[in-house]
Amino acid sequence: MKNSALLEVKPGHKVRLRDVPTDSTHGYSSKDDSLNDLEKLRKRLISLQETLYAERKQSVLVVFQAMDTGGKDGAVKSILSGVNPAGVQITGFKAPSAEELEHDFLWRIHPKTPPRGIIGVWNRSHYEDVLIVRVHKMIDKKTCQRRYEDINAFERILNDSGVTVLKFFLHISKDEQKQRLQARLDDPEKTWKFNPNDLKERVLWDDYQAAYEDAINACSTDFAPWNVVSADHNWARNIAVAQKLVDTLESLDPQFPKPTFDPKTIHID
Amino acid sequence: MKNSALLEVKPGHKVRLRDVPTDSTHGYSSKDDSLNDLEKLRKRLISLQETLYAERKQSVLVVFQAMDTGGKDGAVKSILSGVNPAGVQITGFKAPSAEELEHDFLWRIHPKTPPRGIIGVWNRSHYEDVLIVRVHKMIDKKTCQRRYEDINAFERILNDSGVTVLKFFLHISKDEQKQRLQARLDDPEKTWKFNPNDLKERVLWDDYQAAYEDAINACSTDFAPWNVVSADHNWARNIAVAQKLVDTLESLDPQFPKPTFDPKTIHID
Repeated sequence: MKNSALLEVKPGHKVRLRDVPTDSTHGYSSKDDSLNDLEKLRKRLISLQETLYAERKQSVLVVFQAMDTGGKDGAVKSILSGVNPAGVQITGFKAPSAEELEHDFLWRIHPKTPPRGIIGVWNRSHYEDVLIVRVHKMIDKKTCQRRYEDINAFERILNDSGVTVLKFFLHISKDEQKQRLQARLDDPEKTWKFNPNDLKERVLWDDYQAAYEDAINACSTDFAPWNVVSADHNWARNIAVAQKLVDTLESLDPQFPKPTFDPKTIHID
Repeated sequence: MKNSALLEVKPGHKVRLRDVPTDSTHGYSSKDDSLNDLEKLRKRLISLQETLYAERKQSVLVVFQAMDTGGKDGAVKSILSGVNPAGVQITGFKAPSAEELEHDFLWRIHPKTPPRGIIGVWNRSHYEDVLIVRVHKMIDKKTCQRRYEDINAFERILNDSGVTVLKFFLHISKDEQKQRLQARLDDPEKTWKFNPNDLKERVLWDDYQAAYEDAINACSTDFAPWNVVSADHNWARNIAVAQKLVDTLESLDPQFPKPTFDPKTIHID
């Protein structure tokens, strides 16, 4: 990763999460040192998003996954700061309902994909169906394997119809999670975010890391690779994610549509 | 209205739109003069929204209606600036689909109401079903009258289950619309927002004003009154709307939930 807090996983290159640092500073010496560049990226993002919205041909789907306290909410908030809310669709996926469980695992997911011109942002996603359910042994290995393939097929469908899928795993250390959980207990205005159940999941840390590693390796295709983001430092995570999103939008190169009329000939009474 | 750019319509008090100024400055001498107070309102809004989200007991539904170019997009963007996007749900209602038209007019609306803890923001709404369809004579007077009553019944249901409905009509002059349409024609980066059909609707200006006036008067109840906002000055509109939203949230008085455990007894391994 050298100076980058972001590692894009190439298809066929197996990543080992324990070898990926969680505390990269993305080449900056401090948060203050990064803020000027973050501001520039935000301005660029606001402008690119407006053009994408005006063009109405392509869309982007940003997926965030992480361990508890990994910073999904913070990353969503950071990248959307200043962006026109009309051009963004945010979806948080919770535990599926009884009705949703009666369908294939992508049934509730598909309707939430972003329409043309829109940046969709998912806080959790279809990947929960190969993570939490695997760790808790609610599906067997064979089912999990088949789901990886289903996910790749699903993301191919999206990609083929103009949805660029951009997946971020926010990678924190077990010690960083401990500090963040403790901070929630210590601050009365944050205690509502603390769920005693999170401690039960924390005990399964290694199982979750293994499940993430397998999902990331199985579902990093050339059309929808995973990005592992060093996320112990919120500010380094924010700038790494913003940069990747801006780079992606720039490669899509959206254009304002040409008017179907000559503005000069129009008279307004 | 005196110094206020916002008029809350009391049930039984008939408003006449032509008597309501479109160019109030909300008591400020200029935009610059208002920015400091707007910033204070935004900070208060961010804090109130966080508590509402943590509390998860009540929600707020903000409805924006206006003539074309009236500033719905701008108002949405302004009030959400800085607010945590996870606590907000934005819905833009477009022309109904064939399937939606097979149902009652509130069928596609109801699923978009905000869940507990969330601020829902609607760009257009169920009111289109007593506005555009009435102006174009797609429904008769009797049907329109019955729909006002249906709307009041629907909003009562929402109010009874903890959704505070806050409706804003952004009130601009016909001349201000002309200038805004012309500005879209003159700026190549804005021309995509210009729809030649808007000129056909503009010819029906007086019919629309009459339809708005009737809807506002028929659907201003004690649980969901309309607010007519003077909107020729975007900045005056922004501060008037922000103030009303903050006042409303303050009256809801959301509270952080008490933890069901004693934070001091919890040890994180």
